[in-house]
Amino acid sequence: MAIPKALRRLIRNAVLDLDGYVPVEPVEAVAERIGKPVDEIIRLHMNENPYGTSMRVQEVLASFDHYQEYPDADQRVARERIAAYTGAPSQRIIIGNGSDELIDLLLLATIDPGDEVIVPTPTFGVYESRTPLFGGVVRRVPRTADFDLDIDAITQAVTERTKLIFVTAPNNPTGNMPTTQQIVRLLRTGALIVADEAYYEFSGKTFLPLAREFDNLVILRTFSKWAGLAGMRLGYAILPDALAAELWKVKQPFNVSTAGLKAIEAVLDDIDYLQQTVNRIKIERGRLYRGLRKLNFLQPYPSQGNFILCRVTRGDAHDIHRRLERRGILVRKYSDPDLRNYLRITVGRPEHTDALMAALRGMAGEI
Amino acid sequence: MAIPKALRRLIRNAVLDLDGYVPVEPVEAVAERIGKPVDEIIRLHMNENPYGTSMRVQEVLASFDHYQEYPDADQRVARERIAAYTGAPSQRIIIGNGSDELIDLLLLATIDPGDEVIVPTPTFGVYESRTPLFGGVVRRVPRTADFDLDIDAITQAVTERTKLIFVTAPNNPTGNMPTTQQIVRLLRTGALIVADEAYYEFSGKTFLPLAREFDNLVILRTFSKWAGLAGMRLGYAILPDALAAELWKVKQPFNVSTAGLKAIEAVLDDIDYLQQTVNRIKIERGRLYRGLRKLNFLQPYPSQGNFILCRVTRGDAHDIHRRLERRGILVRKYSDPDLRNYLRITVGRPEHTDALMAALRGMAGEI
Repeated sequence: MAIPKALRRLIRNAVLDLDGYVPVEPVEAVAERIGKPVDEIIRLHMNENPYGTSMRVQEVLASFDHYQEYPDADQRVARERIAAYTGAPSQRIIIGNGSDELIDLLLLATIDPGDEVIVPTPTFGVYESRTPLFGGVVRRVPRTADFDLDIDAITQAVTERTKLIFVTAPNNPTGNMPTTQQIVRLLRTGALIVADEAYYEFSGKTFLPLAREFDNLVILRTFSKWAGLAGMRLGYAILPDALAAELWKVKQPFNVSTAGLKAIEAVLDDIDYLQQTVNRIKIERGRLYRGLRKLNFLQPYPSQGNFILCRVTRGDAHDIHRRLERRGILVRKYSDPDLRNYLRITVGRPEHTDALMAALRGMAGEI
Repeated sequence: MAIPKALRRLIRNAVLDLDGYVPVEPVEAVAERIGKPVDEIIRLHMNENPYGTSMRVQEVLASFDHYQEYPDADQRVARERIAAYTGAPSQRIIIGNGSDELIDLLLLATIDPGDEVIVPTPTFGVYESRTPLFGGVVRRVPRTADFDLDIDAITQAVTERTKLIFVTAPNNPTGNMPTTQQIVRLLRTGALIVADEAYYEFSGKTFLPLAREFDNLVILRTFSKWAGLAGMRLGYAILPDALAAELWKVKQPFNVSTAGLKAIEAVLDDIDYLQQTVNRIKIERGRLYRGLRKLNFLQPYPSQGNFILCRVTRGDAHDIHRRLERRGILVRKYSDPDLRNYLRITVGRPEHTDALMAALRGMAGEI
């Protein structure tokens, strides 16, 4: 869109230089295009929990009748519940509108213009997309051929201006975990290490114990995946004490809604049920992996998340994506050159795996 | 809190320089301290709607059962509903987690280090508290003795680096409206004029029609006050077309939860009911004002919001605040020197006015 000159002067170059926002096609539009009812679409593209969230969420939201009052700015009850769940003291916990908001707050608290952020690629796109908005410079450090962290290259990329190193554990979309030894080497650089454990409940491995030894470790977690609350936008950070105090200064007082805080209490009241869904997803992950391995045009990577990355070894990833979509199955494709010929498939219910595998087997002769 | 030196190096001076976060005392703690049940506390301190929100909000949140799915990043349905409500085209609307998030997005889109933001004081504190975080410099321009905008002083304060001028309309906490002529004079400076119409439904006056003539006008609105949704954190901006396109680039894709988007639909389905609560509040505002005028230690200011600012003409505002609190009535006091001897009283239900007036009359002899 052409910007009137007088208005253009008011907008930062860092923003003008960004590509325009490309809206994601809503599932409703896909459903209409392929002529299927929207509730028959199989959603394997967003790493959502296919079993939904706890029934207690609806109950709590329905019975709460004080929406006219501002939320608790201190998030006391929800933070204490998260403290009990994680074992971290509540004063080191901050809740945000998804991990996304916490990533912004970390950037806002640490980045002056020209400061650097190291992003081992390929990984979750938000670190790289948000850093320049806050004046930071992204240093991409490619992972090795099998998507392991290249710790030598990362430590060599650290400069006096390096503020943050983002490490997703397990990594999205590649599914693999860093080792403790690797994280320790990164912590020794002195930069703030942000371990994004969005998929922790599926891996069962956390770097949180390292926080006892190092005061430059931040853990990010979310209720979007294991707890089935992607639609509620709820993440949290576990921070070094002193950094938590600084992050409280940059957080908007009423960032998270009361509905969000209540939903956290509701899911943490129903961990047993949600843990069962996590267990089912982990079992199904194995079955999906074994199925995908049998195909002669996809190479799946072992995963500790609720998704499996596949390299397309014959044919074209975007073509396969389109063919699946026509059958009402959504998976994740990438425009980034690094991942142009990969697909990420969320682990769904067994019947979703069956439908996906039938569709993939059916197209094997055509691609 | 003492910050380890290695960690201190990682945090921006702009953040280290801020005062530490002071948690607001939760109403539960006040209730316990004064020995009253929490539901007997009269909340006249946050400009909330004392009649609550629409019953449809609870119904919608209870019947929705897809919280595991990410929200619609494009906020299509809710934006179309807001477009119908406001008359502004939906492509010029962006929904945020309260106006607070939209203020951050405006700063993020416009402020490079050293750019200037004009804030006519006294007013809502968020403009001034957030600007330095984004590298901006606040230029405070005091209002006149009767809290009118000092347009000459504001226009003289405009420099080449002025990006934003925030004008709350009606102003919080002073309750008065700027005139159209004043806003036009500000628009002619070429800076982006942010008219924060958080209390629009209580004033019935909007500067939105000026958007036809000027492309540097932003209108902020919220569902917190009139719609009784403070706990849901929902605001929206109506932006010039070209600026809307830029703000979409800086907004996190999934900023607002599905619960929030559904709540907007619910309240806009029930405008007649909510408008009745607004009408009741406007009637009660007149009664409260007339009552306060009769006291010999408070001078109330006429207000077009759902609150009334009072100058304490005898005694001490913080002392009166404490005396009211002891009786279970919360009003807003200020630490800012400009407003140190003022109290802001939210318009409540008639019985709240009665309790407040009885308490104030009862202390008249003691202060």
